[in-house]
Amino acid sequence: MKTSVAEIADLVGGKVIGDKTISITGLSGIRQANPGDLTFVASDRYRPYVNETKASAVLAPLDIKEAPEPVSLIQVTNPYDAFLRVLQRFQPSPLSHPTGIHPTAIVDDTVKLGKNVAIDAHVRIASGCVIGDNAVLYAGAYVGRGSLIGPDTVIHPNATIREEVRIGARCIIHSGAVIGADGFGFTSDREGHTKIPQVGGVIIGDDVEIGANSAVDRATFGQTIIGNGTKIDNLVQIGHNVQIGEHCVISGNAGIAGSTILGRFVTVAAGAGIAGHIEVGDGVTVGGFAGVTKSVPAGKTVSGFPAVDHLVERRLKAGIRQVPDALKRIREMEQRIHELEERINGTSENDR
Amino acid sequence: MKTSVAEIADLVGGKVIGDKTISITGLSGIRQANPGDLTFVASDRYRPYVNETKASAVLAPLDIKEAPEPVSLIQVTNPYDAFLRVLQRFQPSPLSHPTGIHPTAIVDDTVKLGKNVAIDAHVRIASGCVIGDNAVLYAGAYVGRGSLIGPDTVIHPNATIREEVRIGARCIIHSGAVIGADGFGFTSDREGHTKIPQVGGVIIGDDVEIGANSAVDRATFGQTIIGNGTKIDNLVQIGHNVQIGEHCVISGNAGIAGSTILGRFVTVAAGAGIAGHIEVGDGVTVGGFAGVTKSVPAGKTVSGFPAVDHLVERRLKAGIRQVPDALKRIREMEQRIHELEERINGTSENDR
Amino acid sequence: MKTSVAEIADLVGGKVIGDKTISITGLSGIRQANPGDLTFVASDRYRPYVNETKASAVLAPLDIKEAPEPVSLIQVTNPYDAFLRVLQRFQPSPLSHPTGIHPTAIVDDTVKLGKNVAIDAHVRIASGCVIGDNAVLYAGAYVGRGSLIGPDTVIHPNATIREEVRIGARCIIHSGAVIGADGFGFTSDREGHTKIPQVGGVIIGDDVEIGANSAVDRATFGQTIIGNGTKIDNLVQIGHNVQIGEHCVISGNAGIAGSTILGRFVTVAAGAGIAGHIEVGDGVTVGGFAGVTKSVPAGKTVSGFPAVDHLVERRLKAGIRQVPDALKRIREMEQRIHELEERINGTSENDR
Repeated sequence: MKTSVAEIADLVGGKVIGDKTISITGLSGIRQANPGDLTFVASDRYRPYVNETKASAVLAPLDIKEAPEPVSLIQVTNPYDAFLRVLQRFQPSPLSHPTGIHPTAIVDDTVKLGKNVAIDAHVRIASGCVIGDNAVLYAGAYVGRGSLIGPDTVIHPNATIREEVRIGARCIIHSGAVIGADGFGFTSDREGHTKIPQVGGVIIGDDVEIGANSAVDRATFGQTIIGNGTKIDNLVQIGHNVQIGEHCVISGNAGIAGSTILGRFVTVAAGAGIAGHIEVGDGVTVGGFAGVTKSVPAGKTVSGFPAVDHLVERRLKAGIRQVPDALKRIREMEQRIHELEERINGTSENDR
Repeated sequence: MKTSVAEIADLVGGKVIGDKTISITGLSGIRQANPGDLTFVASDRYRPYVNETKASAVLAPLDIKEAPEPVSLIQVTNPYDAFLRVLQRFQPSPLSHPTGIHPTAIVDDTVKLGKNVAIDAHVRIASGCVIGDNAVLYAGAYVGRGSLIGPDTVIHPNATIREEVRIGARCIIHSGAVIGADGFGFTSDREGHTKIPQVGGVIIGDDVEIGANSAVDRATFGQTIIGNGTKIDNLVQIGHNVQIGEHCVISGNAGIAGSTILGRFVTVAAGAGIAGHIEVGDGVTVGGFAGVTKSVPAGKTVSGFPAVDHLVERRLKAGIRQVPDALKRIREMEQRIHELEERINGTSENDR
Repeated sequence: MKTSVAEIADLVGGKVIGDKTISITGLSGIRQANPGDLTFVASDRYRPYVNETKASAVLAPLDIKEAPEPVSLIQVTNPYDAFLRVLQRFQPSPLSHPTGIHPTAIVDDTVKLGKNVAIDAHVRIASGCVIGDNAVLYAGAYVGRGSLIGPDTVIHPNATIREEVRIGARCIIHSGAVIGADGFGFTSDREGHTKIPQVGGVIIGDDVEIGANSAVDRATFGQTIIGNGTKIDNLVQIGHNVQIGEHCVISGNAGIAGSTILGRFVTVAAGAGIAGHIEVGDGVTVGGFAGVTKSVPAGKTVSGFPAVDHLVERRLKAGIRQVPDALKRIREMEQRIHELEERINGTSENDR
């Protein structure tokens, strides 16, 4: 990229403090920036770096009013939004989707392909699938019998969509994700474990993103469901018959066990686990590393294991930090009580 | 499917309360059911839904004796087993394995193929492998040099079996699973870490299932072993030289570190971790999110981190919940002791 | 292999106690060894097994001076190093890399291939990539547009390298690993979540190893960086814009959230999580299952959740174990104080 502080200030509607003519050749985080870079301050955490950054210009909130020479400030109300606007204007996407059907792709004769579908090398699409308009399947992707891929959906390299999975429009399925593997269900006795056939499917709504190496199991019967607009990070496990509502956000390494139901706009932070057969209401936030063992009413924030109301958990954690001191105080009190008892008994005896 | 309440009652040996002639066209969980569906009540948790379900018929335990109109009850001793029987009778598997050897599969000339082996598109089998009768390798599966795939075993799309891995009969290896990647072993000094060659293999018994995106590392030397009948869920990590006995069940996101030995019928719940170089005895149950740091004798149930006897852990967790209150009581006691001391000292002084 | 105790003692510079002529035909761990095997004792934990092992010979530290007949001891200063030397001498690697360019590999015309590159079946390399001398790409591997693979690097089957990823020399990328999937970034409002384009890349240094099914996300802008010599185990999640220094070791199931910076020689044990936007100094050790929520200064060892100094955490855990007893003591003290108060009040009243 090649632009100037003045042009960027124009683009984002910002006010320049410093040299407007400095040329900008790159974009970077504030700690990694080099001369020529534009960077930004989006949170208080990064404010001190304004004085250290090697960037040539900083998109900053209105209350940052100076930066050391030769850094130019561009004041805006929302620096991160402004930075994203610059990003979209100057930084091209690294993606350039394949086009057409590669001759090494093996697409069953019964598959219905929409308009302008792109299928790269070594893709395999089994019988009875329907692929929507403008869908893109990168190399090594697999789509099992009877599955539907919605229009404008992108399936990244080496992702696996198993049988009878329905994926909506404008979804992004990242590499290594596995949608529709068997749910983990067995009947057990002293001889061992007998597999319960997993004959259900998976339904994924529109505008869903599923991260690299995540797994969404097919239902034992019926459907595992991911609602419209839900975003799932990498290495997340979604068990069989789980139902996730619209616009949820589930971060990396989280897991949701079988038959659990999540409402809308639920946030699950990284590394959290949610037990099976429970309900998590609309707008719930599950903290990082939390283990949710019981249903959670709408709107609550829970953390800890077993997860409880976040304020309760904070009080518990604060309490735990005082335990070593409390144990010392208990020993001291026991001594003082003992001494009081001795005194009183002594007094009493003397009294007699 | 198209059947009736009467036919289903016949199939499962149940007693109908309500209209036997109602036609059944689908199977579903009790909360998701629609008119025409058969559902079931398998645990107390789902009992209340009998009064709310939209299903046309419910497989219910003997002590549920009525349901609101127009729901028909089918009383059976084990509703879940009965439901599975209906499932197997009426719901076809979504799987229809590929057949034959696809022309795009690249199978080394030295590979020995059993009878009726199915190898789908873009499979790669390296030199010296042996593939048992009726084995199925889905598209994109990889089998490395010198590996054995037992009869009737199914390798799902994009699963990777590395070199010198032996997989038994009737196993199911799900998509994205990686069997036989290098164990994680290094010798370290101030200059960095030097890789210890991982020259051992992996032996997987019969009737083993390994979930999507799970990893079973090859041994440094000798073998990593998974016993007959053991079932492993998605996103599970099994370290090098681990030995897992027969009929274990290991749930999603769990991890077992190198050289640890599990006995038979061990259950590891979701998200649990087991440290390296320890032994976990037969029949042990490891609770969800537990972190096992020491060997566990046969038959025990452990939970927490570091994991201890489950009853001890429950008492600890119950104790922790009382800590904020206990801290308050400690402060109050200190005050009361102080007052007693003042009184006694005062009394004493007065006495003198 | 076929050698003798005498030959092995020669190779490792050890002293034999017992029969030097015994022939050695295999290598094994001390618990799994059979007659004919050489094994070793590398830690105190395994010392007792010297008296039980079925191995024919044991590499043992100098202070182990006898073993029951017919086991021969080979005394050395470092048994594990000695065993590794034997391993490297006698045990061939199970790997035998493919050679040449397989005709089913689809390599874009614009790709620059170094000397002696090996590309196995069904590999896909997109436009503009550069593949270094002696690099090996196993079957089903994918390399996206504009990526660089350094010399002598090995990409295992079904690994995915996305667009604009730079991988250094002598790296090992295991099967199912995904390098360069989109970072997990959205702007959210009441309508839902809007994807922030992830236009940055990934830079991986020299001599890096990345385990099976691990994921390293591309940067939102700028680069996600993994330093030279860093070793990452299986099923590890590295978020966007993370910077990891040289010679770090990150064990299985761990996760590092976006924009966090790790110094050099940081050790992250299995199952640990590190929050986003923090800094972890050189030489820090993060304990197993720890959850690091704040920056950690160089040289510290932290554990627990939220992670604190390991000694503090140990004191907290020790304190927690005493809580049930402490609660009992609190109840007893309250009773004793109550009795004292009664006595004093009684006394006082009597005094009046």
